[in-house]
Amino acid sequence: MSLTLYTNPKSRGRTVRFMLEELGVPYDTVVLDYGTSMKAPDYLAINPMGKVPAIRHGDQIVTESAACCAYLADAFPEKGLAPPPARRGSYYRWLFFGAGPVESAIMDRYRRIENDAEAQVMAGYGSFDAMVAALDVAVRANPWLAGEDFSAADVYAGSQIDWPMQFGMLQGTPALNAYVERLRDRPAYRRAKSLDDG
Amino acid sequence: MSLTLYTNPKSRGRTVRFMLEELGVPYDTVVLDYGTSMKAPDYLAINPMGKVPAIRHGDQIVTESAACCAYLADAFPEKGLAPPPARRGSYYRWLFFGAGPVESAIMDRYRRIENDAEAQVMAGYGSFDAMVAALDVAVRANPWLAGEDFSAADVYAGSQIDWPMQFGMLQGTPALNAYVERLRDRPAYRRAKSLDDG
Repeated sequence: MSLTLYTNPKSRGRTVRFMLEELGVPYDTVVLDYGTSMKAPDYLAINPMGKVPAIRHGDQIVTESAACCAYLADAFPEKGLAPPPARRGSYYRWLFFGAGPVESAIMDRYRRIENDAEAQVMAGYGSFDAMVAALDVAVRANPWLAGEDFSAADVYAGSQIDWPMQFGMLQGTPALNAYVERLRDRPAYRRAKSLDDG
Repeated sequence: MSLTLYTNPKSRGRTVRFMLEELGVPYDTVVLDYGTSMKAPDYLAINPMGKVPAIRHGDQIVTESAACCAYLADAFPEKGLAPPPARRGSYYRWLFFGAGPVESAIMDRYRRIENDAEAQVMAGYGSFDAMVAALDVAVRANPWLAGEDFSAADVYAGSQIDWPMQFGMLQGTPALNAYVERLRDRPAYRRAKSLDDG
């Protein structure tokens, strides 16, 4: 069954490339450019948002980086990148924590927005520091976010913190820094980085 | 195996209650108050963010509303609220679209923040209108977000649009309005609403 990654090396497609390299399965890569091929009718049929990444796997089309990672983990169960269905509490928790609170907190920091007390109650992440503290508790408790075993939750949520750390937008705790180092040491992480950086 | 919902009727716990009522399984409810029992050590041990909702199911603890819905769908596979693992492209796409782009776009509108052109490229949701348009395409294509069958993606992402519609923060298209009406007509939606509104 054909598997294609639609991406741009300067996008969250890097996270999905990392996931594909963890799986070690063959896939095609289609690089799209911002503003041109990303907004062309061919690609809008795949993602009406005109954003990368997306994947096509047989008749399945997936957009949203986190969804691509979760989908791929389930589509290739023999690779062991998701816990069994009845043991997915932490796995889903951190996948969605990466997609919601981490993403929002980083975007707000990038836009120089601080939540007032009322917005802290409404916002999924509360404050930036609360978001970092929750991640710190997780990586102090276990080597990987879903527990003892590396999973797609680390590929996705780990990348969500690795990226702002690289740009100085997230100051890691000792435990978070050690966690991200473990992530960066993975052969799949290095292969993905080398493929995207050309 | 015991199943407990930690919630507050004025929180996103309403979405998880809707999911539990769709499953039709027995569960206990623990109502926590903002600022007091939600920040007490007993509960911080469950969710260090001090936020509701959370669920505890045997030894599995789950926080983040979307994660609770995805976890519960997998923990009770006989209820048919998630597609089989290899067919989850749209299912995960809309679960994460609800947790990321919809959540961010609504929070920004609530805080009266508009993205400039640069932030639109960075933000997962682009612009508010692009987010609504993507949902509109989805509900025009199929009765439910993952396809023909109702799923946990509708419970979660559907609730993510139902709620701002109720508060006038999201203006639906005809297809989105019809979709949300189908959601509100579900017996589980009504039971959950009645339980939370007391």
